[in-house]
Amino acid sequence: MEVGMFQTPFMEPERTPAQVFDWAVRQAVVADEIGFSEYWIGEHATLTWEGIPSPELVIAAAAHETKRIKLGPLAHLLPYYHPATLAIQTAWMSQILRGRYMLGVATGAYPTDAALRGIKDMSKNHKMMIEAIGIMERVWKGEPFEFEGEFWKAGFPKHDPKKPLRDVRPYGGTMQMAMTGLSAPSPSITFAGAHGFIPASVYAGNNFLRSHFESYAEAAAANGRQSNRSMHRVVRDVLISDSDAEARRLATKGPLGRAWMEYLKPTYERFGVLKGLLHDPSVDPADVDVDYLAEHVWIVGSPETVTAKFQKWFEELGGPFGTLLIYGHDYLDDPKPWEESMRRLATEVAPRLKK
Amino acid sequence: MEVGMFQTPFMEPERTPAQVFDWAVRQAVVADEIGFSEYWIGEHATLTWEGIPSPELVIAAAAHETKRIKLGPLAHLLPYYHPATLAIQTAWMSQILRGRYMLGVATGAYPTDAALRGIKDMSKNHKMMIEAIGIMERVWKGEPFEFEGEFWKAGFPKHDPKKPLRDVRPYGGTMQMAMTGLSAPSPSITFAGAHGFIPASVYAGNNFLRSHFESYAEAAAANGRQSNRSMHRVVRDVLISDSDAEARRLATKGPLGRAWMEYLKPTYERFGVLKGLLHDPSVDPADVDVDYLAEHVWIVGSPETVTAKFQKWFEELGGPFGTLLIYGHDYLDDPKPWEESMRRLATEVAPRLKK
Repeated sequence: MEVGMFQTPFMEPERTPAQVFDWAVRQAVVADEIGFSEYWIGEHATLTWEGIPSPELVIAAAAHETKRIKLGPLAHLLPYYHPATLAIQTAWMSQILRGRYMLGVATGAYPTDAALRGIKDMSKNHKMMIEAIGIMERVWKGEPFEFEGEFWKAGFPKHDPKKPLRDVRPYGGTMQMAMTGLSAPSPSITFAGAHGFIPASVYAGNNFLRSHFESYAEAAAANGRQSNRSMHRVVRDVLISDSDAEARRLATKGPLGRAWMEYLKPTYERFGVLKGLLHDPSVDPADVDVDYLAEHVWIVGSPETVTAKFQKWFEELGGPFGTLLIYGHDYLDDPKPWEESMRRLATEVAPRLKK
Repeated sequence: MEVGMFQTPFMEPERTPAQVFDWAVRQAVVADEIGFSEYWIGEHATLTWEGIPSPELVIAAAAHETKRIKLGPLAHLLPYYHPATLAIQTAWMSQILRGRYMLGVATGAYPTDAALRGIKDMSKNHKMMIEAIGIMERVWKGEPFEFEGEFWKAGFPKHDPKKPLRDVRPYGGTMQMAMTGLSAPSPSITFAGAHGFIPASVYAGNNFLRSHFESYAEAAAANGRQSNRSMHRVVRDVLISDSDAEARRLATKGPLGRAWMEYLKPTYERFGVLKGLLHDPSVDPADVDVDYLAEHVWIVGSPETVTAKFQKWFEELGGPFGTLLIYGHDYLDDPKPWEESMRRLATEVAPRLKK
């Protein structure tokens, strides 16, 4: 199992854009130094708790400050861009990063982000995403075409030897794409399987996760694609410290706990997936507090405890998966214990789990 | 007179995107260190000689590596974006840079850039730009609206106390915008005067430049705005070295000469403005070579020669203007003399001209 980060970001609403940006870049640098394999950045125009509107700007800033880690938006919300412009930008970024780039795409789920683009009825967002992907894939070929779709017009000009065109293809000629899934069954995970995209499952319990594994494999097979568990990314909260007590204190009394109680728990409830996280169906969601989360939802403790919890989890899942992504959290005021936790996950826990 | 750079970029067509990006960021850092006041970056999706498709990515990368210099796209081509998405991105960038950001906008003049977005008839690009500016200015207020225009739908959602929205306003509440002008009369310069945008004149001779000064002042006055010459940016090539001979060698036998003969001269001809650059109307454009350019178009020589040429130029213009922008050129293979030239312009020539 590789380890990476999903910087949604869960920065506290009081933070300024400069603080959010600086922290997101700093965390990419730390993640690169300690051996995380990838770093994904969310995109939302109007949200306070997920306040990065342009993940590409964080990636551009991290490009010169990182060496090995792969960087990617997770996800660009395709209905909200001109697809040809976004295709050009992302291909250029993949060239700048010499392939250390992956492109997550999504439909956009938040009505306030949609309202900004004059979209009141979001039922067409999925169709918009499909049309946008088709346009982007054609632009990336750099060959002449003309297209007039339901939502956009696009094309690629004919080559004129007197005025040569820039090579607009992504690094290596193709773009590795990704999609997230939360609920089950997840149309996004099925789409990812059918198209060879990376599936990134936001953890909402083992049943949902097993459903993602299965539907991805089925969709891949139905489209003649190879697939295996190593493609899967799973997003979950992890915090490691010297002792179980200290790790739990850092989590429950720190930014991780605040993010869950103020933002994540209500969001999981709104999307109808909080139930999946409960260890027993008889638990009343109203009783889910930071102590419950630390015991049953997050993976928190000493390196030994966290290793044992992962092992138990993998047994329940019938084996590991490709890459664990931990959520980024707002430990800006006291970064050291958080970054030490990241380092221990990469250098103490992950190597033990590989054995 | 302040000094800045316009990184269009004139990078040679053989360069990779990573080379173009790395050089553009490096030049911003150098410009900041030596005291340039601003650094502008062009945008074209399909051109080889102006091969930065996403200036915002260069700005994001330079944000952490620079301290005082102002950074800005010159220009985002508004017909090719969703205006609300671009408004959010540029306002975020202005916050990240704590105000060290200015936003150039334009209609897009190259048919291949337009073809990428399915636009064959560019006659509506100006109308698209106007509509886009209107949308962006409304988004930047962060107050609810709904808008359905000829080209885009946009809006801003109502505030719901239970789900607060991110503050999307630019740093300081307003965005300083800019527009370039080349021909005369220039509708862009007139528009800039009417709206309080910075006018950036690409130098095409003194007559054109005087026309820009006049039409800007007239449009400003007609709209009740104060204006003076200090608002004006003028783009021109400058190269300084120890001796006149060495400066001329670096210019005529280097990347500056190649950019002009292969790209800029044909482009000025195509836009019908090469004639304005000639010191005498009887000169045959076919005779315009690097030596002619070094003598009559660029400002090239020792610090003393360059200072004298500027003084003569200002006399012809009836006084100086606000900021000289030098074009960036592709001195990547031997940066030292070029960066030394930039330093001498900022620290030897400009202070003498201020006296």
